[in-house]
Amino acid sequence: MSWNNKNATQDAIEEQGFQVKVNNQTVPGVYWTPVDGNHKRLVLLGHGGTTHKKTEYIEFMASMLVARGIAAMAIDGPGHGERASENFTEEDTDAFSRAWQSGGGTDGMLADWRAALDFIEGEEGPRPTGWWGLSMGTMMGLPVTATDDRISIALLGLMGTWGPNKEDLARLAPEVTCPVRFLVQWDDEIVPRDACLELYGALGTGKKTLHANPGKHAAVPRFEVQGSVDYLDRYLG
Amino acid sequence: MSWNNKNATQDAIEEQGFQVKVNNQTVPGVYWTPVDGNHKRLVLLGHGGTTHKKTEYIEFMASMLVARGIAAMAIDGPGHGERASENFTEEDTDAFSRAWQSGGGTDGMLADWRAALDFIEGEEGPRPTGWWGLSMGTMMGLPVTATDDRISIALLGLMGTWGPNKEDLARLAPEVTCPVRFLVQWDDEIVPRDACLELYGALGTGKKTLHANPGKHAAVPRFEVQGSVDYLDRYLG
Repeated sequence: MSWNNKNATQDAIEEQGFQVKVNNQTVPGVYWTPVDGNHKRLVLLGHGGTTHKKTEYIEFMASMLVARGIAAMAIDGPGHGERASENFTEEDTDAFSRAWQSGGGTDGMLADWRAALDFIEGEEGPRPTGWWGLSMGTMMGLPVTATDDRISIALLGLMGTWGPNKEDLARLAPEVTCPVRFLVQWDDEIVPRDACLELYGALGTGKKTLHANPGKHAAVPRFEVQGSVDYLDRYLG
Repeated sequence: MSWNNKNATQDAIEEQGFQVKVNNQTVPGVYWTPVDGNHKRLVLLGHGGTTHKKTEYIEFMASMLVARGIAAMAIDGPGHGERASENFTEEDTDAFSRAWQSGGGTDGMLADWRAALDFIEGEEGPRPTGWWGLSMGTMMGLPVTATDDRISIALLGLMGTWGPNKEDLARLAPEVTCPVRFLVQWDDEIVPRDACLELYGALGTGKKTLHANPGKHAAVPRFEVQGSVDYLDRYLG
């Protein structure tokens, strides 16, 4: 594994590409830090289905976190971004399942994130670390949070006992023991609301708050996105 | 109607009793203001079942609001506090229904609150006004918010399409058009969770956020109570 490039994308944020080798696959990642070097905490950003590690809202999240002195890291999920072998839409659930499985399913995805976090910690040392990820970002983030003790807080949501790894989500939810804020879109047209509520209910932690708002899957209100940064900032280490 | 007594209960908060006559009933109320006289906004506090206008958490809410320069007002609900003709517990739903009906049901309750707010506005003039009330505080507050245009924001919750005025709640929820934050206790042993979710879903406003937390009916986390004050403070006029 190695750093790729190193360039300041904005005045206050530095972006570095990297890659890790996991089970013969190359997993590309990106790491954001404040240019002043003052970052004592880390948040892993899990992108949603059909998007990638540098999709617009992930970069927006990174910039908001970095503005608070929190480093951020993202990788391409299985079958997504630079790891994609086909393009597909959110409605194409068969292609989405193929993408998910192309990385070795939930176990493969867990190995990807573990390797990426190992790499970052090898460079920077261990720090209080949180997760932020919605939809497929929770398909990844819930298992990561459940199985990696380094994650001490998580922002999850827009996902339920649903989709290609729903059995893994149902099995691992009770093993999530850190604080979680869980977002639900009341009129979610992709992941059924009841499945989302069921997954929230299954989380093992006693410190879990559900925030629901009207609107479709991708219509999370801006105040809720801003609030998710406040949440991580307030409770992260 | 008239002011009763006038005494500073704490260094920074002034408490004044008052009463209004509504349909041949005397409705006692209490009004809290900062002693420095600086209060340009008002929140109506609806107490829960079996409690009263000056129960501990209502006084706590009043003190938190007054600390932010927000006046607060509460009255005894029908069959509660000084208007009670029998004592009862939360489990005694028959006695609770009798208490509710003793004031003329939802219409009588609406007349009580309207008269109380008329009285306060007569003394102080109109100001941006919000509602805070959980459980029976929502049995009262949802109809008040739906029918009184002076209420511009509401903190509701711990209530559903349930109880002695459930038909009124279901009928009036679509007429609530101001911003609402709605609290749900995931393990509510009194008001079924599904009934709470249904009532949230029925609210007519597009600016409604649901916050759910683990625990029984009365176990609303302290951070959520504090957050409810932040919410009213931020968005009230």
